[in-house]
Amino acid sequence: MSNHTASSGNMSYLDVKMHEGRNCNSPSPKMESNRDQNGVIQPLLTDLYQITMAYAYWKSNKRNDVAVFDLFFRKNPFHGEFTLFAGLEECLKFLANFHYSEADIDYLQTILPPYTDQEFYQYLRTLDTSKVTLYAVDEGTVVFPKVPLIRVEGPLPVVQLLETTLLTLINYASLVATNAARFRMAAGPDKSLLEFGLRRAQGPDGGLSASRYCYIGGFDGTSNVLAGKLFHIPVKGTHAHAFVNSFNGIDDIKQRNLARKGTDEEVDFVDKCLKWREKICQVLGVIATETIEGELAAFISYALAFPDGLVCLIDTYDVLRSGTPNFCAVAMALDELGYRAIGIRLDSGDLAYLSKRMRESFKKMAKVLEAPWFEKVTIVASNDINEETIHSLNQQGHSIDSFGIGTHLVTCQKQPALGCVYKLVEVNEQPRIKLSEDVQKVTMPGKKEAYRLFGADGNALVDLLQLPSEKKPGNGQRVMVRHPFQESKRAYVSPARVEPLYKCYWKNGEIQQPLASLQDIKRRAQRSLDQLRTDHKRALNPTPYKVSVSDKLYNFIHELWLENAPIGELS
Amino acid sequence: MSNHTASSGNMSYLDVKMHEGRNCNSPSPKMESNRDQNGVIQPLLTDLYQITMAYAYWKSNKRNDVAVFDLFFRKNPFHGEFTLFAGLEECLKFLANFHYSEADIDYLQTILPPYTDQEFYQYLRTLDTSKVTLYAVDEGTVVFPKVPLIRVEGPLPVVQLLETTLLTLINYASLVATNAARFRMAAGPDKSLLEFGLRRAQGPDGGLSASRYCYIGGFDGTSNVLAGKLFHIPVKGTHAHAFVNSFNGIDDIKQRNLARKGTDEEVDFVDKCLKWREKICQVLGVIATETIEGELAAFISYALAFPDGLVCLIDTYDVLRSGTPNFCAVAMALDELGYRAIGIRLDSGDLAYLSKRMRESFKKMAKVLEAPWFEKVTIVASNDINEETIHSLNQQGHSIDSFGIGTHLVTCQKQPALGCVYKLVEVNEQPRIKLSEDVQKVTMPGKKEAYRLFGADGNALVDLLQLPSEKKPGNGQRVMVRHPFQESKRAYVSPARVEPLYKCYWKNGEIQQPLASLQDIKRRAQRSLDQLRTDHKRALNPTPYKVSVSDKLYNFIHELWLENAPIGELS
Repeated sequence: MSNHTASSGNMSYLDVKMHEGRNCNSPSPKMESNRDQNGVIQPLLTDLYQITMAYAYWKSNKRNDVAVFDLFFRKNPFHGEFTLFAGLEECLKFLANFHYSEADIDYLQTILPPYTDQEFYQYLRTLDTSKVTLYAVDEGTVVFPKVPLIRVEGPLPVVQLLETTLLTLINYASLVATNAARFRMAAGPDKSLLEFGLRRAQGPDGGLSASRYCYIGGFDGTSNVLAGKLFHIPVKGTHAHAFVNSFNGIDDIKQRNLARKGTDEEVDFVDKCLKWREKICQVLGVIATETIEGELAAFISYALAFPDGLVCLIDTYDVLRSGTPNFCAVAMALDELGYRAIGIRLDSGDLAYLSKRMRESFKKMAKVLEAPWFEKVTIVASNDINEETIHSLNQQGHSIDSFGIGTHLVTCQKQPALGCVYKLVEVNEQPRIKLSEDVQKVTMPGKKEAYRLFGADGNALVDLLQLPSEKKPGNGQRVMVRHPFQESKRAYVSPARVEPLYKCYWKNGEIQQPLASLQDIKRRAQRSLDQLRTDHKRALNPTPYKVSVSDKLYNFIHELWLENAPIGELS
Repeated sequence: MSNHTASSGNMSYLDVKMHEGRNCNSPSPKMESNRDQNGVIQPLLTDLYQITMAYAYWKSNKRNDVAVFDLFFRKNPFHGEFTLFAGLEECLKFLANFHYSEADIDYLQTILPPYTDQEFYQYLRTLDTSKVTLYAVDEGTVVFPKVPLIRVEGPLPVVQLLETTLLTLINYASLVATNAARFRMAAGPDKSLLEFGLRRAQGPDGGLSASRYCYIGGFDGTSNVLAGKLFHIPVKGTHAHAFVNSFNGIDDIKQRNLARKGTDEEVDFVDKCLKWREKICQVLGVIATETIEGELAAFISYALAFPDGLVCLIDTYDVLRSGTPNFCAVAMALDELGYRAIGIRLDSGDLAYLSKRMRESFKKMAKVLEAPWFEKVTIVASNDINEETIHSLNQQGHSIDSFGIGTHLVTCQKQPALGCVYKLVEVNEQPRIKLSEDVQKVTMPGKKEAYRLFGADGNALVDLLQLPSEKKPGNGQRVMVRHPFQESKRAYVSPARVEPLYKCYWKNGEIQQPLASLQDIKRRAQRSLDQLRTDHKRALNPTPYKVSVSDKLYNFIHELWLENAPIGELS
């Protein structure tokens, strides 16, 4: 018992500050700047090279150079042709809270070389983001490769120091929101979609982020209680196999009574359920002795606890021969006392077949027992479902009303990372270009404005990047748009409507825009997706959406490219 | 600017408690129980159904039923045949800190039905884990499917309430530690392995967890500064392309001097570098005008900041025609002043080819310039590397000394989730079996002891599960081991050594074992892997390791199975 102090855990999380929330009724956007955030989001949540680079910049007298970085991705995830932008609010809170604590400085002194100039630490102590300006696309907007999602301007070392944390906050948020949107499109607008992924998420915060950004992407709720508490997302859930397994038989039920709804009249509810079970076994043509008594006891106990919220997991034993009749018995007993059961959950087996068989049983119940509500009892499915499973269920036909989705959704199994990068495009008003043998990886230098051009039918036609000095394209006005790297690919567009994509979100140490609620971001995402032509959204071989540049920007890029690319010597 | 109060973020993180660390010099294991932990790890970080089940148990008078749950997985990840167990320390801290705050209770009252018995909330207020006992395998041990990693015993509602959080803490930790171990085996013991994944991790905590558990799995360091601070992991890093891109030319260097090592004699370092570049271009046979001056300026600036820590990213422009000669020039200039450059980093291109070409150049430098140290200059590679890339590099031959690995490592791209489950195996000393059509999913009922049996060569032969009433197999004593589900698969084993796998880690509200440091867990993992025969560890078609049961446990399981499986009626 001697080794306690050596434990990996004894380095304190105390320096992982939890930032206090301010009074949220204040009218000024300023107050937004100090909002609460998970304490691990802090300036040291970064790669060491950001700090060594900051030192080298500082040391080379480049501390006041004004740099511009673009944050963008090169390829849509999941073999798709769109991405949902998410994570911006967390980035803004990070900027608002950006500050090195004394403990941070102490730690940095232990990892940087001893000959590091002590004045650098003094510089770090005073650093904040008051000289940083950040432009961004609205959170929840559909975005495309190469169009910067965020543009950050400010002192070179400071904007360099922001890189890793901004990428961490955007990459996964946008990835999982996009994944959720794809599940929503697969399931259709009428199905209920629930995120059940916490236990398989990549770390506790991975689980929390998943719940939040899946909601933006189109999910209706989560099983994650903390996400419900922190983000006001509806939380859902019923019971697990363990609950059913914990009951041996009817004798396990100690308190058998339930009051008739809205009255004090207590009735022996167990008796009612047993009577209904006999009848229902006849209706459904199943053998009463094959229904498992422990399962019935579990369903009854759950109903006694939640008489108006009964959802039974019916596959612990045989779905059709035990789970279904047991559920039906309890549901009818509840009905007799004035309560309404919600439904059942299926967590194994052939979901298409079983859901259809169960819907038949429910319809039979409705008809034979004159209980029309039974026809519409909710069927929830939750067995390792991915996007393809839903497409396949749609093809086969099914009777599922609600999907509970875990692993594939939150870990984004199909592609677990989005490749956002953060590239320097300007220093002291001089554009910078990053060349590469791979044309896909050549960056677009300088500051750029971005517009989305819409057609008369309301659909987005093309995104257009321009030089900041160029005029915003006018509605109905004909403009030439060019492929950024393929000379001959050009087109004229006469947009019915033009929307600027960027807003200034951070300047002078303050958030510059009212931050939308999660519900508003979710609605914005839906609207933004609705404005995208269906062929860009389809699951199989979607059409790429066009991202273009103005003629002036095209020439600007290519002149700079030729200027910077060395001319080889053939020998 | 009217919508501030509606923002998703204004629900406070204040209730996300940061638990204060105690004085770590206290000798009692008790003090361990209140260690610091990321505040999002708390009782509400769970699925809602745990809370509804707890209510239903409570309501059915099952609150003092004593339940036993096993936490285990059914399949090793990454098509492999082993898994590293990790995440235990976080589970113990979670148990130690387990408590519902008033704010938690207030929130639960808003999501549970209004008719929920108010006494239940009183019950939740008083809940802690003082009646819970937890047995576990040591963190860092190699583990196999079906052998419980953790056994939790205690009041049914309480142990039920622990499920999701324990799974969240174990699943990803064990997955990423296993992934790291596989990268280590692919790279071999002599290569340096660095985790560079923060920006692509699934959320900020996903990044932190990755850094911590990759270190356990065999990595040497991380780029994640916060992980370094919190867990004492070595942090590494140099500079990015943006750093190189931020320099236009030599004129960007304002302060040109560097002191000769150990003296105050300042020398114009830029001059030295320019002279060396001329010479080196001759040695390497490259054309001086093809080396990019901005790149040289960046390398010089970095060397001025870190004269004893120079690692240059040499692929911003042409690796062989610009990056290599520029690096060599600065390295030789440093050498002249008594400093030693560390090496270079390659982040694109054909890593096998380029690393070999560069090693040739370095050897040439060593020979022609009589600088023998140059031969051993470190080559770091970091371009989207996965396990297969390393195997392929090994086949082709390469000269890389160190790998920086990001996305594939931390997101576990090959399989981003481990499927640990938490199954009820006993209630009030009555064993529980969860049946399934799929034999793989049938649980092993009751409490079990687990032993690892070793052969005379020190290798692990088989894991053996027994009834707790059975005697521990003796060294050299012949025991029969059986496949848990295939009747005819039996074998006799005479183990040279037998190790019990479980220790009691939590009891009476206190941690019962000294917690090992991260370094010790890392060493344990290495030892545990070393004891595994190589054919279980190979990348391609590894041999499954045997997990067996004693004859008594076999009969116990199968009797219970027959007892519980209903006999169908054929008609």
